[in-house]
Amino acid sequence: MPLVDHHVHGALRRDLTRAEFESSITESDRPVPAWISTFDSSLGFAVRRWCAPVLDLPPYADPSAYVERRRELGAAEVNRRFLGGAGVARFLVETGFRGEELLDPAGMAAAARAKADEVVRLETVAEELAGVAAADFAPRYAERLAERAGTAVGLKTVVAYRHGLDFDPARPSAREVTAAAGDWLRAGGGRLTDPVLLRHVIWAGVDSRLPLQVHTGFGDPDLRLHRADPLLLTGFLEQVEPTGVPVLLLHCYPYHRQAAYLAHAYPHVHFDVGLALNYVGAAASTVLAEALELAPYAKVLYSSDAWGPAELHYLGALLWRRAMSAVARAWAWPAGEAARVAEMMGSGNARRVYRLRES
Amino acid sequence: MPLVDHHVHGALRRDLTRAEFESSITESDRPVPAWISTFDSSLGFAVRRWCAPVLDLPPYADPSAYVERRRELGAAEVNRRFLGGAGVARFLVETGFRGEELLDPAGMAAAARAKADEVVRLETVAEELAGVAAADFAPRYAERLAERAGTAVGLKTVVAYRHGLDFDPARPSAREVTAAAGDWLRAGGGRLTDPVLLRHVIWAGVDSRLPLQVHTGFGDPDLRLHRADPLLLTGFLEQVEPTGVPVLLLHCYPYHRQAAYLAHAYPHVHFDVGLALNYVGAAASTVLAEALELAPYAKVLYSSDAWGPAELHYLGALLWRRAMSAVARAWAWPAGEAARVAEMMGSGNARRVYRLRES
Amino acid sequence: MPLVDHHVHGALRRDLTRAEFESSITESDRPVPAWISTFDSSLGFAVRRWCAPVLDLPPYADPSAYVERRRELGAAEVNRRFLGGAGVARFLVETGFRGEELLDPAGMAAAARAKADEVVRLETVAEELAGVAAADFAPRYAERLAERAGTAVGLKTVVAYRHGLDFDPARPSAREVTAAAGDWLRAGGGRLTDPVLLRHVIWAGVDSRLPLQVHTGFGDPDLRLHRADPLLLTGFLEQVEPTGVPVLLLHCYPYHRQAAYLAHAYPHVHFDVGLALNYVGAAASTVLAEALELAPYAKVLYSSDAWGPAELHYLGALLWRRAMSAVARAWAWPAGEAARVAEMMGSGNARRVYRLRES
Repeated sequence: MPLVDHHVHGALRRDLTRAEFESSITESDRPVPAWISTFDSSLGFAVRRWCAPVLDLPPYADPSAYVERRRELGAAEVNRRFLGGAGVARFLVETGFRGEELLDPAGMAAAARAKADEVVRLETVAEELAGVAAADFAPRYAERLAERAGTAVGLKTVVAYRHGLDFDPARPSAREVTAAAGDWLRAGGGRLTDPVLLRHVIWAGVDSRLPLQVHTGFGDPDLRLHRADPLLLTGFLEQVEPTGVPVLLLHCYPYHRQAAYLAHAYPHVHFDVGLALNYVGAAASTVLAEALELAPYAKVLYSSDAWGPAELHYLGALLWRRAMSAVARAWAWPAGEAARVAEMMGSGNARRVYRLRES
Repeated sequence: MPLVDHHVHGALRRDLTRAEFESSITESDRPVPAWISTFDSSLGFAVRRWCAPVLDLPPYADPSAYVERRRELGAAEVNRRFLGGAGVARFLVETGFRGEELLDPAGMAAAARAKADEVVRLETVAEELAGVAAADFAPRYAERLAERAGTAVGLKTVVAYRHGLDFDPARPSAREVTAAAGDWLRAGGGRLTDPVLLRHVIWAGVDSRLPLQVHTGFGDPDLRLHRADPLLLTGFLEQVEPTGVPVLLLHCYPYHRQAAYLAHAYPHVHFDVGLALNYVGAAASTVLAEALELAPYAKVLYSSDAWGPAELHYLGALLWRRAMSAVARAWAWPAGEAARVAEMMGSGNARRVYRLRES
Repeated sequence: MPLVDHHVHGALRRDLTRAEFESSITESDRPVPAWISTFDSSLGFAVRRWCAPVLDLPPYADPSAYVERRRELGAAEVNRRFLGGAGVARFLVETGFRGEELLDPAGMAAAARAKADEVVRLETVAEELAGVAAADFAPRYAERLAERAGTAVGLKTVVAYRHGLDFDPARPSAREVTAAAGDWLRAGGGRLTDPVLLRHVIWAGVDSRLPLQVHTGFGDPDLRLHRADPLLLTGFLEQVEPTGVPVLLLHCYPYHRQAAYLAHAYPHVHFDVGLALNYVGAAASTVLAEALELAPYAKVLYSSDAWGPAELHYLGALLWRRAMSAVARAWAWPAGEAARVAEMMGSGNARRVYRLRES
């Protein structure tokens, strides 16, 4: 069953040292201490168990042997094996974070023999505007976003990292935006953390009518996890509701039951447990089951949120498939229903939300 | 083993169209979009699996066939089958929400061949007072409540929906109540959302010494879920503690571990995972197990929180029985202990808390 | 496999009545109501299942028989059996809470034929200073702490009980400390709840460079559970990070996934689910599995947090061993990896963090 990976980043184009690989399988942005190996984690064990055989090694191969074999094959072949093996028919690639190190959508499509579309990060578009006049910020942002969104299938906000989800849900006034833009520009632009500007780019995203992805739940320590609880978005979701723009809550762990509630309550809200499944590894079926307790099955999507090593693109799909099967078995679903629901969550819901066409 | 369903509403008296039935198996109060079926959810699958056979259909009958068969039998027969089949000896029926569409306690008793008592919703009693003078609000409320509570076995507050559980726990002064009542009356009465009046009716409820039910956790999007965490009641619970009035936290999901902590810590606090078990369907044993991790077994009650289609009254009981058995098996309880604990949670604790007499 | 119990208190030196024993297997500090038995709980069932055989009784012995047999054997023999049977090679004993009723570290070592080191409670050291001049509080605290810490292996703060984890993470100024000490001393000293003094003793603890244990998550109702979510420590953890002092989040339930995130994100953060495993009994493997979803395996430690009856010292170890085995089996770890990870979490990580020497 081919999947739509509705939120993913590119695979790294270059080879990785042991230290680089270890850093790429943790969400911590700190240097890995000498006394720790990130292979000793649920994700690390999943890499050894499931990815080693793809590189012709036995399950649970030694980390050193694993990284060496990876280099021996070379990044292109590694990417070809993992991306091709994921069984993903279509990647929606978010390009806004260190995209220059990664395969772009076309590169992903080629390596995976799949389709690839773009998802545009709203904050990154703003950060390209440093140098405009304050009064031009809003119109130039609108222009630039329209341009980028012209070929994109969705938008994404990382307000969870830049402020927290407890932002004022109201659209800021034009005057507020100009004032905030002035402050930001005078400080030299750069990383967008001003709450007024963050709200502005989010509402500009809503205006574009493209589906809006929102990072929620765990990620690197740039965020405060308790301020990334998707329930903090409730007021914002209610303000977006009349526009009909679909909102997609990404990842959500450990607040995935809360995300499922929002998807249950609000017609335009969808979610995934993307990033979480990779990171919890063998516990993927537990987390997926919790996510499905309250969720309308038409509101759950598949994503890997993979960034970097193509193992993550592969594992995301593999762990999701295994977790879906385990849940269907544990809940004693008839085979036909299990297949139908897996198809909805694996690709059908994404095709509907993003209006993906086959050609 | 006959159950006491300590928090339930009446069953609908009339037949339901497909659209009406779909709307009655979701907590969302929004119209169900055309591209969604609420049958595609844990509750919907549970209806198809467990309720279809009660209507002489095979498990996992098609939703259309299910709704058609339901209409063919007629509401009275459907209610008779599901209410009679639930194995509930006694219903404590909360009558304060759209009661005119539902079987009243006597109707429930007749349809289920069981006993039925009333639980009075505190806010509804206040809303019947529109038209009094502000200064008369408090004494008239006390009179009216005493009258209603004369035959009731418990009281219920929906402050979670009207404000959130983060209310000031202190009893408001008489002057504050009169002033707030004046504002409310001048605005034409109606839905009670003023925090002072909410606090007043809750404390009036405590004064009556009847057990006090508090909705916590998920429900329709009229509430903010993160403001329905029962832990937000901690200060209020400590203020009620000296009165000895039992407090019953209803439903609690996804904060049921938190509710169990409160029941563990405070002698007068009890809880259930009522509504949640129906909605999580096949995951009921997971949720019940989590609820029982920290809970004193003398503090856990059974409820269905069913409102509307009698499937919910039936499923609540069926899923609870199955979940209790699954937990006892998973935790390797001896059969005698399993039966004893199930009896406590299924009926004994409710009989003690509500002082239910057999006659 | 011998364990290091990195956070534990002494075992009670005296015999216990039925009522005393019941009170010692709940975290509630309220009198146990007549209609409740704390044996009817996950912990109570675990005592009957696993501890009864250690006292030569059958599994699930009757509570009365259990307590009687306990008294018949006498506290010394009971302690010898449970402490000796726990398979703990080293106890890190926190001595700051009602230590006079308990075996001290030497007594624990003798009864268990194990090593025992001390962990010093920061607030208790301050409470011994009543009577000093306000201006002397800080220097005298430093002196006293240096003295106590001279032989201790770690420090512990109970700020969760005294204020909540939502304290201002900044180190208070000398002037603020003197002023707050003046207020505290004028009020007669006693229980330390002033937030400035709490922050002072915590930072004094950090200055000592010993590993810092922080109680988080559930405990007796002296705390507000929602203010004991370890995520509320995020700002504090970031301020401690440059010092390199290890922080150990204790217990964490029901926020253990959140604690695992902090251990994932920050190199100096470690955690356990100590207290929780005893209290959730048969559900220990569920809770441990959740804790391990996101946790680096080098960051998880074993503790029992036992205080009082030696059953808790024994059960903590037994439930942890059983839970580790169950998780390894459920996640299909190879035997060698399972043993390696269990050794890390059971003792190796503690030996590294606390720099424990064999002699």
